[in-house]
Amino acid sequence: MTHSHALFATPEDVEAAFYTAFSQCDIAAMQKLWAHDAVVCVHPGSHAISGYSAVLRSWAYIFDGAELPDIQLKLVSRHASEGLAVHVMQEHIATGEKTTALLLATNVYRKYADGWLMVEHHGSMVQSQQVAHTVQ
Amino acid sequence: MTHSHALFATPEDVEAAFYTAFSQCDIAAMQKLWAHDAVVCVHPGSHAISGYSAVLRSWAYIFDGAELPDIQLKLVSRHASEGLAVHVMQEHIATGEKTTALLLATNVYRKYADGWLMVEHHGSMVQSQQVAHTVQ
Repeated sequence: MTHSHALFATPEDVEAAFYTAFSQCDIAAMQKLWAHDAVVCVHPGSHAISGYSAVLRSWAYIFDGAELPDIQLKLVSRHASEGLAVHVMQEHIATGEKTTALLLATNVYRKYADGWLMVEHHGSMVQSQQVAHTVQ
Repeated sequence: MTHSHALFATPEDVEAAFYTAFSQCDIAAMQKLWAHDAVVCVHPGSHAISGYSAVLRSWAYIFDGAELPDIQLKLVSRHASEGLAVHVMQEHIATGEKTTALLLATNVYRKYADGWLMVEHHGSMVQSQQVAHTVQ
């Protein structure tokens, strides 16, 4: 799979670009950091979206008319191998006068011949300190 | 980091053991498939739980007194490298007469000297087909 745009030197560079694109609602920047093959995105509370085009359409939908969010990040965990990196990030997202939302995201980065790109983003809203007892 | 129990030959073997332990509410089996270092678990709607002991306590809490769930799985995506594997799974979970819940999980497996173990489980409930418009 070839990519027409410049890739990133490290997983951390992709992640920085991802959160800059997210906080600026910049779909052109977002288009440049996802791989073209086998990507998947789970927005909080939503189904899995598979494939580059569908994933980018979902971000365009989120960005359309949105107030620019303020996103405060904290690294929860990081696993890395030669070709894959998996980061769990805590995201505090504030938009306008709305209440700040607390989310957790698993971000997965993959190394291609020319560098790193994002292949997965799985976000979930933190709704409670409690572990649910009925279903996991 | 050494593990006192036998490890698994493939990421798929860990995953099969994970869902068997989950569906049987078998905490002893669950204890044998998580790595001892740098593990993280996000139960749906909850905060991140870090560390082997805390992660296993959370599963013991979920299993305590629970009806055995029926879990139907579908692989959504898979990324693998020499030392890491990341699977996104769709989980249909049914318990007793309760409504079936639809969840998505990112499961991460890591290769140690003697084989593979689980290092991350990030579950989220699918609440809507819609992508939320206000926060991601």
